[in-house]
Amino acid sequence: MEAIRATAKRVPVAVLGATGYTGVELLRLLARHPGVALAYLSSEQYRNRRASDVYPFLAGVVDAALGPPDAAAAAAAAEVVFTALPHGAAAPLVRDLVARGTRVVDLSADFRLRDPEVYARWYATHATPDLLATAVYGLPELYRDALRHAALVACPGCYPTGALLGLVPLARAGLLTEPVVIDAKSGTTGAGRGAKIEQLFAEVNENFRPYGLDGHRHLPEIAQELRAAGAAAPPLFVPHLLPVSRGILSTMYVRTGAERPPLGAVFEAAYADEPFVVLRGEGPPPELREVRGTNRCAIGWRWDAPSRQAIVVTAIDNLGKGASGQAVQCLNLMLGLPETTGLDAPALVP
Amino acid sequence: MEAIRATAKRVPVAVLGATGYTGVELLRLLARHPGVALAYLSSEQYRNRRASDVYPFLAGVVDAALGPPDAAAAAAAAEVVFTALPHGAAAPLVRDLVARGTRVVDLSADFRLRDPEVYARWYATHATPDLLATAVYGLPELYRDALRHAALVACPGCYPTGALLGLVPLARAGLLTEPVVIDAKSGTTGAGRGAKIEQLFAEVNENFRPYGLDGHRHLPEIAQELRAAGAAAPPLFVPHLLPVSRGILSTMYVRTGAERPPLGAVFEAAYADEPFVVLRGEGPPPELREVRGTNRCAIGWRWDAPSRQAIVVTAIDNLGKGASGQAVQCLNLMLGLPETTGLDAPALVP
Amino acid sequence: MEAIRATAKRVPVAVLGATGYTGVELLRLLARHPGVALAYLSSEQYRNRRASDVYPFLAGVVDAALGPPDAAAAAAAAEVVFTALPHGAAAPLVRDLVARGTRVVDLSADFRLRDPEVYARWYATHATPDLLATAVYGLPELYRDALRHAALVACPGCYPTGALLGLVPLARAGLLTEPVVIDAKSGTTGAGRGAKIEQLFAEVNENFRPYGLDGHRHLPEIAQELRAAGAAAPPLFVPHLLPVSRGILSTMYVRTGAERPPLGAVFEAAYADEPFVVLRGEGPPPELREVRGTNRCAIGWRWDAPSRQAIVVTAIDNLGKGASGQAVQCLNLMLGLPETTGLDAPALVP
Amino acid sequence: MEAIRATAKRVPVAVLGATGYTGVELLRLLARHPGVALAYLSSEQYRNRRASDVYPFLAGVVDAALGPPDAAAAAAAAEVVFTALPHGAAAPLVRDLVARGTRVVDLSADFRLRDPEVYARWYATHATPDLLATAVYGLPELYRDALRHAALVACPGCYPTGALLGLVPLARAGLLTEPVVIDAKSGTTGAGRGAKIEQLFAEVNENFRPYGLDGHRHLPEIAQELRAAGAAAPPLFVPHLLPVSRGILSTMYVRTGAERPPLGAVFEAAYADEPFVVLRGEGPPPELREVRGTNRCAIGWRWDAPSRQAIVVTAIDNLGKGASGQAVQCLNLMLGLPETTGLDAPALVP
Repeated sequence: MEAIRATAKRVPVAVLGATGYTGVELLRLLARHPGVALAYLSSEQYRNRRASDVYPFLAGVVDAALGPPDAAAAAAAAEVVFTALPHGAAAPLVRDLVARGTRVVDLSADFRLRDPEVYARWYATHATPDLLATAVYGLPELYRDALRHAALVACPGCYPTGALLGLVPLARAGLLTEPVVIDAKSGTTGAGRGAKIEQLFAEVNENFRPYGLDGHRHLPEIAQELRAAGAAAPPLFVPHLLPVSRGILSTMYVRTGAERPPLGAVFEAAYADEPFVVLRGEGPPPELREVRGTNRCAIGWRWDAPSRQAIVVTAIDNLGKGASGQAVQCLNLMLGLPETTGLDAPALVP
Repeated sequence: MEAIRATAKRVPVAVLGATGYTGVELLRLLARHPGVALAYLSSEQYRNRRASDVYPFLAGVVDAALGPPDAAAAAAAAEVVFTALPHGAAAPLVRDLVARGTRVVDLSADFRLRDPEVYARWYATHATPDLLATAVYGLPELYRDALRHAALVACPGCYPTGALLGLVPLARAGLLTEPVVIDAKSGTTGAGRGAKIEQLFAEVNENFRPYGLDGHRHLPEIAQELRAAGAAAPPLFVPHLLPVSRGILSTMYVRTGAERPPLGAVFEAAYADEPFVVLRGEGPPPELREVRGTNRCAIGWRWDAPSRQAIVVTAIDNLGKGASGQAVQCLNLMLGLPETTGLDAPALVP
Repeated sequence: MEAIRATAKRVPVAVLGATGYTGVELLRLLARHPGVALAYLSSEQYRNRRASDVYPFLAGVVDAALGPPDAAAAAAAAEVVFTALPHGAAAPLVRDLVARGTRVVDLSADFRLRDPEVYARWYATHATPDLLATAVYGLPELYRDALRHAALVACPGCYPTGALLGLVPLARAGLLTEPVVIDAKSGTTGAGRGAKIEQLFAEVNENFRPYGLDGHRHLPEIAQELRAAGAAAPPLFVPHLLPVSRGILSTMYVRTGAERPPLGAVFEAAYADEPFVVLRGEGPPPELREVRGTNRCAIGWRWDAPSRQAIVVTAIDNLGKGASGQAVQCLNLMLGLPETTGLDAPALVP
Repeated sequence: MEAIRATAKRVPVAVLGATGYTGVELLRLLARHPGVALAYLSSEQYRNRRASDVYPFLAGVVDAALGPPDAAAAAAAAEVVFTALPHGAAAPLVRDLVARGTRVVDLSADFRLRDPEVYARWYATHATPDLLATAVYGLPELYRDALRHAALVACPGCYPTGALLGLVPLARAGLLTEPVVIDAKSGTTGAGRGAKIEQLFAEVNENFRPYGLDGHRHLPEIAQELRAAGAAAPPLFVPHLLPVSRGILSTMYVRTGAERPPLGAVFEAAYADEPFVVLRGEGPPPELREVRGTNRCAIGWRWDAPSRQAIVVTAIDNLGKGASGQAVQCLNLMLGLPETTGLDAPALVP
């Protein structure tokens, strides 16, 4: 019924921070979403320019002008506001929006960690710790019901999305009794669109490297959700930078203590009806390109008998299921729309 | 009205040669096209496998099995058949299909050249020269009316599409009085999915080179259509191989003999109502990524006063407007559907 | 003294299989090596053409013609022969060469595994099992003394080189008591220069994927050498395909059972005088590009206290230290030359 | 004799601006140059750090600390100083160095244009116009004799090097009577190592675009040298940005007015004895990778009879022959060393 309403009347939405990589991916998705209308866009950096001036591919798609990141204007124009802003910058705006009764889908890191002390250790003192209890972690496969009525959605980080979709079913099945190894490889858009030397083409191209060996901010987020799912040990997380624009592939190594655990049964039970999870099982392992531009997560696995470890591989698009696609999936839940609305385009291959 | 019919009843279509790069792009587009249903697919190489086994991204999108390239089976199943086969292999199948009264959209080179002697010089003796008069050149911006009722559409080559959209308006305006220079740069999918050493990643990556300096098969096709549009001199065409998967950018240099010609007026008159042509004029020049995954052609231009030459730049996706996107645009015309049906996804950026 | 002799008189060497990726890297290195002269080259595929016709960059560097892969001709012309041929094809030629008293540096897989039954399980029945005892495993950091007088050197595989340099010191220190995880990522030249669809630019570019999950031929080689070094458990090895031309980065996870083991002391003791091992320790982790075009191996490490695991990262150029560079290092040992002769060019960065 | 002296005693040289892309390429080349010793290095951005801390590949190659860009210190330490600084910043330092009697090889744009008014139009008011007459344009193929005794060398821009090597012989032969088209494609290092959004990996990767259509600073430089060589008309220059790290390929279109001009004879006469020019003639056209990491320029050509135009293609490494390699070639001339000293490494292929 709400779907019908949405078809009849598009729900006005806003995007604050519309020209970063997650922001422009929201524009790309929302512009073709049949249930919503883009009602307000902001960009600090390109204020007063048109979205299609900044990104020529948006010509005829999103030609609207970019305003300031103004909560009052966004709340006046939109029923749901996406905040795609740097951590720290998001929290005050979100508080303002929530106070005005506007539902918020936040893509920053500000509301992902439930414990403000953990946030303080990895980021900074939290500006709005009182709001943390309000936020629903925006991973529909884990928190679908709560998301339907959420006032504030905290979209997961890109690495946590890829790791958790592969590990939570194992944790819930009691198989994460020892520290799991998460060897993750990400495209460069995961680092955002800031002008940094280490993200220049000539620094990333024909290169590959691990980073964050001394601790990456997505680690406490992964740990929090694994713990909530029943994991008994902390994960070991090593991210790497791939010379591709989009995508995260996570190869995970799990000692279960068990004889060959029923991996297939565990994943099939967990994801039987999930519209965006593709189970590859023991077939050809997931690859980055099969999810490029989509909201999908492909999952494959193997049991390595000699070392008695399970290998679990997940592939997502860090801007899709790892950020903006997932944010739209959450929106669909919030609006009572079919979960795949606006998210059914196949991957761009080749 | 036909659109309504199409919504009510999807037109069955077939794709022969469904696993090459233009074939799989057809699957990607047709699977989400609201007016058609994929009724028959063939692949010589992967016969009896499922499309989604060959291309995992098609899981849940196109899971159908791949049959042989059989005209009878395709004609029985479909009202319109796309032939995405190598030149030479297409012609006999197309003859068979046309003889059965099935409409055909051919993506090979077999019906692009009107003169069988020219075909013979650049390819081989033509197997079905009698059919050449039947074929309509599938560039809707030039032959829209004829395409609506075409029994056989000859989809243009990728390079010709990019060159002609930038040059035909000038030719028609009488400005192509001297040989034009077409310096074109293409991504690798233009060469197809054959297993060739020169297309290996390690040969193309971090490399760039011209090729076909002794004559490229797309030259006579460009020349044919420029001549038809009024060009008085033959073009000079130099293709180059770019280390990208998709896209053709053509930089063209035109001596008009005239004082600064009215480039803007010429292009605006030619393309005022075209849904897939984006005129950038003298603004930021076209770039490959703004058309990636789309059926668009972006066109920019400049007048260089010191050398008294016009610079015209076009950007297309060689698999989109340069092949399969354009084929679907032709299909829409053939079926009386709105021309943008199934072709309105924004580019994948970044 | 031998170095002086070599300067005075260049030692004639041959390369059989000179136009594959490891073959051409040998040409690149040997052409500028002050102690040798290229005396005979072969290429099945490009027989009778000049090396510089196949690879234009060799113009003025190696213009010699390519003969057939003929052991007699190579043995007549050269004191040392490099065989850069597919496994299976190398063994008979190597036998012939050894029988003629010619020293051989073999880059195929044919002499890496000491046990012919293991070879049979992973490759095929061995054609010359009697020669296996003769072969010295060409990892100078492990077998330097034996290499000086070797009649036949079996150059290690690329993955084994990267893995073993990071793990053998730990194995020798008794720290490999549990299965180690080797998560390795390789550029595409590791797969050779065969015309395979899965190695086409458009298949590899913007993609990333694990492969060989059901068993990779480099696994038994890694296991053999780890066992020889004292490892008590089999490794788990997962290779991935990177969209770069050159380089292997291996991230390895080691449960030592110990409290924080003395990683720095172990590596420093093992590699104090090694000319090609660069110890990054706990500083910025190794990256692919720092070794591109070189014979270096960069090694970094961390102790992850929460999960009680050591992370060891190695980076090599799969064509350098992973193949042809290492082959030249072995040659230097065989000829009594300084080990860095012809191998001191810095990496190509950026 | 000087070569002997240089072997006996290495000439101390300095690099001011050692951590930009041309600076670090100088370090890579000079560290292995047998006739010089690196005596002083500066970096504004990384002052007081070691070169090998900024670029790990320099470990064991250049470990020296980076000082301030101080002319006095450089002049005290070195006989020849390379200035690899931004335009505008170079001129005052160069004046200071020259005043101290130190020979300078400047890689900035400050001394390339002979007319200070032209410099003012394209850059800014020139700080040291009096020095312009002193500077020798550092293209050895054109100004070899003057370079031997130069006090100040103005290294050409990367685009001008690629264009001029292909066009000057034609200009000198009186064949440049009409405006030539220079369609040039460059890798990203040509834009330097500044932190700019448009140079981020995710902006350049899978993209390609022309730029500078309204005038590029290398145009007046090309025009100046073509005019000096006898060209009768201004060039038309359109640069494009390639998704590769290194290399410039220039495709040039020349209407000679003549019947098929003797292209081969012209180029062979011009470059018969040039150690770094590789004439491909009408064979396979030049490609970027064949010059990667080298000081070479590959030149190919064709006569297109139908359009009566010559096509000339050149390929250089923008950091090699287009900048730092050429600077070292100039140094060799200045020091009386063989011109290829330190510049004979083959290209890195693949």
